[in-house]
Amino acid sequence: MPSVPEAFTPPPRVLLGPGPSQVAPSVLRALSLPTIGHLDPAFLGVLDQVRAMLREVVGTSNELTMPMSGTGSLGMETCIVNLVEPGDRVLVGINGVFGQRLAEVARRAGAEVVTAECTWGRALDVDSLARAAAGRSFKLLCIVHAETSTGALTPIAPFRELADRLGALLLVDAVTSLGGVPVDMDAVGADALYSGTQKCLSCPPGLSPVSFSPRAMQVVAQRKLPAQSWYVDLGLIAKYWGGERLYHHTAPINMIYALHEALRLALNEGLSLRYARHRQVSHALGVGLEALGLRLLVPASERLPPLMLVEIPAGVDDARVRRHLLERDNVEIGGGLGPLKGKAWRIGLMGESCTANSVSTVLAALRDALISEGHRAPDDPVAAAQAQLR
Amino acid sequence: MPSVPEAFTPPPRVLLGPGPSQVAPSVLRALSLPTIGHLDPAFLGVLDQVRAMLREVVGTSNELTMPMSGTGSLGMETCIVNLVEPGDRVLVGINGVFGQRLAEVARRAGAEVVTAECTWGRALDVDSLARAAAGRSFKLLCIVHAETSTGALTPIAPFRELADRLGALLLVDAVTSLGGVPVDMDAVGADALYSGTQKCLSCPPGLSPVSFSPRAMQVVAQRKLPAQSWYVDLGLIAKYWGGERLYHHTAPINMIYALHEALRLALNEGLSLRYARHRQVSHALGVGLEALGLRLLVPASERLPPLMLVEIPAGVDDARVRRHLLERDNVEIGGGLGPLKGKAWRIGLMGESCTANSVSTVLAALRDALISEGHRAPDDPVAAAQAQLR
Repeated sequence: MPSVPEAFTPPPRVLLGPGPSQVAPSVLRALSLPTIGHLDPAFLGVLDQVRAMLREVVGTSNELTMPMSGTGSLGMETCIVNLVEPGDRVLVGINGVFGQRLAEVARRAGAEVVTAECTWGRALDVDSLARAAAGRSFKLLCIVHAETSTGALTPIAPFRELADRLGALLLVDAVTSLGGVPVDMDAVGADALYSGTQKCLSCPPGLSPVSFSPRAMQVVAQRKLPAQSWYVDLGLIAKYWGGERLYHHTAPINMIYALHEALRLALNEGLSLRYARHRQVSHALGVGLEALGLRLLVPASERLPPLMLVEIPAGVDDARVRRHLLERDNVEIGGGLGPLKGKAWRIGLMGESCTANSVSTVLAALRDALISEGHRAPDDPVAAAQAQLR
Repeated sequence: MPSVPEAFTPPPRVLLGPGPSQVAPSVLRALSLPTIGHLDPAFLGVLDQVRAMLREVVGTSNELTMPMSGTGSLGMETCIVNLVEPGDRVLVGINGVFGQRLAEVARRAGAEVVTAECTWGRALDVDSLARAAAGRSFKLLCIVHAETSTGALTPIAPFRELADRLGALLLVDAVTSLGGVPVDMDAVGADALYSGTQKCLSCPPGLSPVSFSPRAMQVVAQRKLPAQSWYVDLGLIAKYWGGERLYHHTAPINMIYALHEALRLALNEGLSLRYARHRQVSHALGVGLEALGLRLLVPASERLPPLMLVEIPAGVDDARVRRHLLERDNVEIGGGLGPLKGKAWRIGLMGESCTANSVSTVLAALRDALISEGHRAPDDPVAAAQAQLR
């Protein structure tokens, strides 16, 4: 028999990539509380509190608001698979990898998918989507609120108007916005929304909050065929999370403890203060990066505070810089995805990672790495950034 | 704004139901280690060790052996959705709720499903399945190794022979057997297998180990259509877990820390000793329950050591007894599922929960609860049970 490995001890990383973000000590402690049963009345009480707190953060009164038992992409699949039946027409706005993924998931659910290709690194453009629709009606309009591959933030409200003109439900990807940027689901009129826990909520990855409006749930209830996935069938799952407490699958107990604590931290901080913190710290990072002579990919007015895309200067090696940061400074930042691979870095300031210290840490480490790449770097981008926060 | 709830403190339960089972302190500690990135080389090392240890426990050399990012039912869906294309013929042996679920998931994947209904509380009967096949060929033969709804254990090997006659791949549900009962995937010739972490591996719920034989992976590679689910598409996921380390979805980092530690505990105990422990402790529980005047649902030779079904005596109230156990003694046992609801209890002795102390605890508590129901109970079922362990 091969030998059994030693117990694992993670290196002391500073997580400043596109997620997971730094997890607060009290969330890690909650994660390690003794597991209890998924039908234990004490656990059902936790579920109810998680749902109530999620509604606060999402900005909704939707009864069906709960975390799915998987990571963010399972939330995406949950929304598509429950709302779409084979042959339904779906319009997807694409300005990055996650729009592409939405289109792919919808195709696999049998939808007739129409895509509107928008500029990567910019907000989605409502006129482009309207043109792509070409006067047809749609079952579903899908947009990405916060594009994790480019760092662009798209205002949701204009797409509600478009959805109305198309006769469509509006589905919103809020993976990288929830908890760091206002989502205001009910105010903007989204019908379905999914997110992840490992971004601005600063909970470890493993859960995907979703919320469905009563109108969306009516569509689910009136399906002609059952959802193609049993695991994410909301008609079945809602019976566990809702009144009947009917067993569907075993909930990931400890992950839900952690989400409970992460939501408590967010609400105790206060959502407005939390959003302001993300704006201010992110602004300071942008100033510092520009002081380093780097170009930001997204124009300031369309920039997603929790995640900033930086163009990699000519002659600088992407992988070598990120390895330098990780190995020498224990700092993780993200590489580019899709066409941005090797062309941009993704620096996340999400939830617990969104602090003045993170800004200093990443600017100092990046300056150092760039100098060792032969890049001309100014003396002190940190001072330029910190001046914004004092 | 509604007030923010207090931090949660779970009650000190003894978990003796059908899962989750008791989690070892070192697994809870591993769960609470600081989160690091899913592409961090340190984390990729953990993935490799988890895969190697899983292969040991599953008894396989299959390259594709890894935990899916969801609970056991997601593992079921992973196996079906990757192996089945619309119109494929699938044979499912049903002797409980999880066989029914397999059939349902296969139907939703577009399969032509043929079921063989076998007796609940007994092992699957290979002749019944052969008769249901009625000479036709099949893409896939599905069996449940350890039926969590009835506590029956079905030997796998005879179904390999049947699968060969049908020209089918053999899919095995090992949710409640893995880590508590030998599975020996390669020796018995299973092509695909899924399990859960919260049963005999005593890790919190949230991951579903799966393993695919090279022959099964060939079927996946030769699909005509992409899998209907993007989230569980093994062709895509294997690129992250395998050599290329290509991002698919964010792995549930901390849950994988916990599985790493749980697998370490299982292998350090030694698998043979671990299986013997489950047999011996379970036998003692059976003796004690019979000493209490209770009837066991499954004949001794077909009984699943980690999970015992006990018939609820006439005149005894199911819910009241379980509430008595939970509220007075902090002991969780399970109720019956499907047609066994209200008719049987499910007492689990899985992984960390499988100890002599658990046997004493549940027998003493159950005796007390039965007496308060007016059931005639002998003086000391605990002594009868413990005599088996000394």
